[in-house]
Amino acid sequence: MGGLTVLAALQRSLPGEEFVYLGDTARLPYGTKSATTVRRYAAQAAQQLVARGVKALVIACNTASAFALAHLQEKFSPLPVFGVVAPGAQAAIARADSSGVLVLATQSTIAGGAYQRALTQMAPHVPVYGRACPLWVTLAEQGPQDANLTRTLLSHYLRGFVEQGPRTVLLGCTHFPVFRDELENLLDPDVQIVDSAATTAAVVAQEMAALGLLCEKRTGASNVYLATDGAARFAQVGRHFLGNEISDVELVDL
Amino acid sequence: MGGLTVLAALQRSLPGEEFVYLGDTARLPYGTKSATTVRRYAAQAAQQLVARGVKALVIACNTASAFALAHLQEKFSPLPVFGVVAPGAQAAIARADSSGVLVLATQSTIAGGAYQRALTQMAPHVPVYGRACPLWVTLAEQGPQDANLTRTLLSHYLRGFVEQGPRTVLLGCTHFPVFRDELENLLDPDVQIVDSAATTAAVVAQEMAALGLLCEKRTGASNVYLATDGAARFAQVGRHFLGNEISDVELVDL
Repeated sequence: MGGLTVLAALQRSLPGEEFVYLGDTARLPYGTKSATTVRRYAAQAAQQLVARGVKALVIACNTASAFALAHLQEKFSPLPVFGVVAPGAQAAIARADSSGVLVLATQSTIAGGAYQRALTQMAPHVPVYGRACPLWVTLAEQGPQDANLTRTLLSHYLRGFVEQGPRTVLLGCTHFPVFRDELENLLDPDVQIVDSAATTAAVVAQEMAALGLLCEKRTGASNVYLATDGAARFAQVGRHFLGNEISDVELVDL
Repeated sequence: MGGLTVLAALQRSLPGEEFVYLGDTARLPYGTKSATTVRRYAAQAAQQLVARGVKALVIACNTASAFALAHLQEKFSPLPVFGVVAPGAQAAIARADSSGVLVLATQSTIAGGAYQRALTQMAPHVPVYGRACPLWVTLAEQGPQDANLTRTLLSHYLRGFVEQGPRTVLLGCTHFPVFRDELENLLDPDVQIVDSAATTAAVVAQEMAALGLLCEKRTGASNVYLATDGAARFAQVGRHFLGNEISDVELVDL
């Protein structure tokens, strides 16, 4: 579901392209699964997309990017495969000051430490804090909720970081951009919120152009939506993440 | 995970038996999946257990019971296959008065209407209310949490039922018994909370005895635990549901 926030950014950066989007709705969420299982499920999803003749692959999920990027790059070489972790980390570091970066993500992403490693490698002297926000994915997938409930659940996981904390907050889960406005209200006005969607889209556009793989802007480009379960629910919940209606969802079996 | 509350009850009712417990941790939660997918996943899980020579099958999940019981009974006939919906509904009706029954369950269970149908069939004049509590499964799987957060999330989904509502509340999800104490504090003292674990265990014990399939009480009976992902996490989170330590979790692939 969260990957649709990345798709929205990709559509803006690559207006000439058609996208095939696969949501593994039967087996979500990935954020509590082990690295081995995430890698296996990501490879099955990638295989399905590759079989449809895509010219590049974007892993629009932080957990899958953290655990499966190198594996998919090797498995499908020379197909370009992009993840969202490195672009997200770059965007955060570009804005970070000495107060550091707070990464908000799923349990698996935080426990796996991919963001913390990427950030520390890019800027060894910037303090990095990680916080797992386990209920946010489920909350986001409910669609718009009672404002009090949302505020309570967001505040709960920000404890200790609201008054005095890093002034850069990195949304390390593709679901979390739907909470951006509420997070801005909860955090200090000088805190900058960064997500990986726009940066990933910029990286993809740049590298695809360098590889000569980019299509010119054209009209009539349309997307294909695949889901592994619940086409109706995918379309209904998904439009909150995409910011647009989703139609003609095709069910696939991985 | 929630099925472990049913296992705990089964162990008390059938002290002579050894249990093989399978948690489909790679693909949980079932409560947001479509009927078709739940049926397919449940059949794969059942196949794994049948291959290990079990003499009866208990579907220790409300969503899977609601969608897959008839399918599994037919597929594995003459093996006895038990679900948790009918025993839960019976227990609720036995205690219900004219104020009715409130069923708290996952989105899929409430939307599927299996409890509402079972209750109405057993007692056509008892009003039945259903409420989906989508965040409770995720909350339960976090293990013991901040008491304020738990209370906020429980209250949120009880809105409209706390002051004046049915005086029988049926926990229609095997995860929810971990919230029993907090729910008792939130609801009126004369509200009775019913869950399907103990009733299911009683039904299983009774029918297994009638079929002559029950073992005598013996010492040294030990359980086998299977999970499809994250053995360590299964053991760690699972003990809150089972009320006992879980050791030697074997990973299986469905």
